[in-house]
Amino acid sequence: MIDFRTEPARYRHWKMSFAGPVATLAMDVDETRGLAEGYELKLNSYDLGVDIELYDAVQRLRFEHPEVRSVIVTSAKERVFCAGANIKMLGLASHPFKVNFCRFTNETRNAIEDASRNSGQFYVTAVGGPCAGGGYELALATDYIVMADDGSTSVSLPEVPLLAVLPGTGGLTRLVDKRGVRRDLADFFCTTEEGVKGKRAVDWRLVDEVVPRTQLGETAARRAQQFAANSNRPADARGIALKPLSRAIGESTITYDHLEIELDRERACASFLIHGPTDPVKSPHALGCDFWPLAMARELEDAILHLRFNEDAVRTWVFRSGGDCAGLESYDAFLLANAEDWLVREVILYLKRTLKRLDVSARSIFALVEPGSCFAGSLLELVFAADRAYMLSGSRDGDEALPAHVALTGLNFGLLPMCNGLSRLESRFLREPEKYSNLRTRQSAHLDAQAAEALGLISFAPDDLDWDDEVRLAIEERAAFSGDALTGMEASLRFGGPETIESKIFARLSAWQNWIFQRPNAVGEKGALRLYGSGRRPEFDPRRV
Amino acid sequence: MIDFRTEPARYRHWKMSFAGPVATLAMDVDETRGLAEGYELKLNSYDLGVDIELYDAVQRLRFEHPEVRSVIVTSAKERVFCAGANIKMLGLASHPFKVNFCRFTNETRNAIEDASRNSGQFYVTAVGGPCAGGGYELALATDYIVMADDGSTSVSLPEVPLLAVLPGTGGLTRLVDKRGVRRDLADFFCTTEEGVKGKRAVDWRLVDEVVPRTQLGETAARRAQQFAANSNRPADARGIALKPLSRAIGESTITYDHLEIELDRERACASFLIHGPTDPVKSPHALGCDFWPLAMARELEDAILHLRFNEDAVRTWVFRSGGDCAGLESYDAFLLANAEDWLVREVILYLKRTLKRLDVSARSIFALVEPGSCFAGSLLELVFAADRAYMLSGSRDGDEALPAHVALTGLNFGLLPMCNGLSRLESRFLREPEKYSNLRTRQSAHLDAQAAEALGLISFAPDDLDWDDEVRLAIEERAAFSGDALTGMEASLRFGGPETIESKIFARLSAWQNWIFQRPNAVGEKGALRLYGSGRRPEFDPRRV
Repeated sequence: MIDFRTEPARYRHWKMSFAGPVATLAMDVDETRGLAEGYELKLNSYDLGVDIELYDAVQRLRFEHPEVRSVIVTSAKERVFCAGANIKMLGLASHPFKVNFCRFTNETRNAIEDASRNSGQFYVTAVGGPCAGGGYELALATDYIVMADDGSTSVSLPEVPLLAVLPGTGGLTRLVDKRGVRRDLADFFCTTEEGVKGKRAVDWRLVDEVVPRTQLGETAARRAQQFAANSNRPADARGIALKPLSRAIGESTITYDHLEIELDRERACASFLIHGPTDPVKSPHALGCDFWPLAMARELEDAILHLRFNEDAVRTWVFRSGGDCAGLESYDAFLLANAEDWLVREVILYLKRTLKRLDVSARSIFALVEPGSCFAGSLLELVFAADRAYMLSGSRDGDEALPAHVALTGLNFGLLPMCNGLSRLESRFLREPEKYSNLRTRQSAHLDAQAAEALGLISFAPDDLDWDDEVRLAIEERAAFSGDALTGMEASLRFGGPETIESKIFARLSAWQNWIFQRPNAVGEKGALRLYGSGRRPEFDPRRV
Repeated sequence: MIDFRTEPARYRHWKMSFAGPVATLAMDVDETRGLAEGYELKLNSYDLGVDIELYDAVQRLRFEHPEVRSVIVTSAKERVFCAGANIKMLGLASHPFKVNFCRFTNETRNAIEDASRNSGQFYVTAVGGPCAGGGYELALATDYIVMADDGSTSVSLPEVPLLAVLPGTGGLTRLVDKRGVRRDLADFFCTTEEGVKGKRAVDWRLVDEVVPRTQLGETAARRAQQFAANSNRPADARGIALKPLSRAIGESTITYDHLEIELDRERACASFLIHGPTDPVKSPHALGCDFWPLAMARELEDAILHLRFNEDAVRTWVFRSGGDCAGLESYDAFLLANAEDWLVREVILYLKRTLKRLDVSARSIFALVEPGSCFAGSLLELVFAADRAYMLSGSRDGDEALPAHVALTGLNFGLLPMCNGLSRLESRFLREPEKYSNLRTRQSAHLDAQAAEALGLISFAPDDLDWDDEVRLAIEERAAFSGDALTGMEASLRFGGPETIESKIFARLSAWQNWIFQRPNAVGEKGALRLYGSGRRPEFDPRRV
């Protein structure tokens, strides 16, 4: 079982150090401690285990280190920056693992960009020694790349010529869309095993600056200081500790403090029950990581990652909630009122990133809104993230619980966008902007099933007589379809509207990469990824498709 | 060999009729006349042959029928509108054929939308009888859908539940992005074999109007008249005939009037030589389809389609030109000066669509700019469409021909956009807008290799000493890479910048579909596409990826 929970004391592959406003993340991969058997992580190449630590570090830098305003990413090895994802590992990996590995590494790089853009925590990469493939893709996710100008240092994306796959961790997209590398120069660069060095790398916009090797550290530190000077992070704040997450995994249950998951293997579905907040709102500065929205986001994120990798036959995720809408609304009101506070800002951004993980998970998502649920505001986003939402109309026969209601809050209108840059509601009403703006006026109204259906917030509102059958059939039907077709369909229907660099990475780039990951040219008996390092030459189908 | 050349007298599957400003395209598929063996085109299902005729009709309606301001798409069969792409045909087809079939059908539907948006020729669909899969996707490409409200008429996209593939001819994208169908309702619709009828179809925005079956024709005609009233097509113009294209195919040559292609099968490349115009500009109203830009576009389009389907081991397309830049510039000046004329407008739009076909072809594109070439303005777009452009610096040793030059014209600045909505130059200089605006001031300057390189218009400018080796190596290198990796790489690097419905169809939707077209759930021994109609149930891998 792959565990995404870690902490700095347990890192095997990264060294984190601090000097005032500048932190340094030095990659120092222990080649003997790969996550699985069968490969060695030579030359600072990485596997999922290395990236789990990187993600943890990025996350802790935000919450635990408000004083850190810029981060230098570098290598602790003398002769190499990073050789990219470990090829032997990729060659041994199953198709689902490859796809999910790329999805997670992409999310980690997006988290770095989110810190730069929204948290005032900037990233500078100092490249000394070869920086290839996923190593350069990591650099591309940072704000500024300084490279040593020496005979052995270059940046490269050798995936196409060496491995017959794409630089699939955002590399192609970020080259042209983020850095504005001209497409024809990018074409040359991406077909050149040895990469590009020195001045040409600057001229082509591949890196921002080259300096003599002896000045690399000093230059990176100076740039980091310059970025730090532009940060809006607070001066004398204290971070909060992200304490170990408590989790109990049973045969068919996963239990956190605020989230219980039941796995129904026969119907291939996981039922998520989120317990809303019970205590009155107190500041996260006092509560630390026990602050409900933060605690819930951490648990939800861990569950998403756990299920993606460890439970891939669980095809449908069903979200339910229990608690009091008013509790959610008061938390959202607090978040909105304090959105400028650095820690509250982090909580909102983290909620956003966690919900985004849901949107790009290859699972069908259903939401069930029943009496006793608390789908309001930020938690209501789960209903909008769902491929379908069912809301029980009226009460259950013989049950005294009041009928379910949902409530919109200010958090539904822009602070929790999807990766296409739109809020889920805006994307939902793409060609009906008047419906979208009307919803703004309905904030804090308690909407019953009829009202929610009329406003387009839920999909169907069966009554007690039909509820069980309708929901059961929908879940069973989902389990009977091809998971691949569902993945392609959901990826198309979920993202109406514009595309951003981030959404292009998950669609244009990753979908092509997944196709290539199925093609004999890459993964067949004579495919390049399979044969890499064997000394045998790959054989390719001569046809272009 | 698949031939894309046809004309109304040879149609087997469509009936075209005219009534003043309204034309009718009635689908009447001859089930016995499929393009290949092994399937019958029952229930107005279609194969590539049917779509070749549809494309031809759409094209001729624009050039030959200026009086036509709206087009009704309907079925000539009593009991069915269209059952979509023929499933038996898809089940028998190779992977490359499937992918290219979808690419072409997508381009045909985009051509319909281009007519609506830019030619004042609107499309109305009249749906009587089941309208399933590709049939509904055709309707989605039109401006208005009227549907009969009876027991047997519905719209549906049953691909996911029935075949384990996507509605891949734009259906998913157009549902949410064009029609604004809510994503959760779209989810339900796309997983429901029997589709949606009557009022619900209108409420969900799947169609625009339902009427009793007896009023279907009359209503469609009335809507067509209303659209026609808003058209800006001319009142008393005469169309021009698109005469049969002359083409000679030899062992390793394809020869048109203005375009010669040499196939070098050893190096897996096709060399396109385009001959520029030799006569002074005369109006297309006088010259008809012999007007150079139109004649060249028709030949180029036919060559692209021919090579895509019939020469899939020819992996690299190399573009050269011969003639006089000044000739091209005078043609471009004429096109610009008369851009409001309906026929000139059609020529420019057709050039645009043809160049777009190039961008989405799964072939590497190189351009070679040599002495004697005429890459100016609209023809220079080929250089910008290329993955790499080489321009010879200086003259050839011992050759008296003047060094090559290129020239920008007004046509490079917006009238020939790519499918992402940007001109190739704008996308090329995505993060350097000042370079892009500077280029506007350089129109009509004759730019030699140094100047073109400095402005970023070409990739490399070797001199005579290096030219042959550098070009040869680049082409040979291309032939040695995996074609799949190149396809994914080129599709990512070519489209920097925003995405549109059209580009989302070629990226997000088609890339996922191509992945699904490789997956055992669809095409394996027990896959749904393979087993459809056999009475056997498909077996699916339980994992979500």
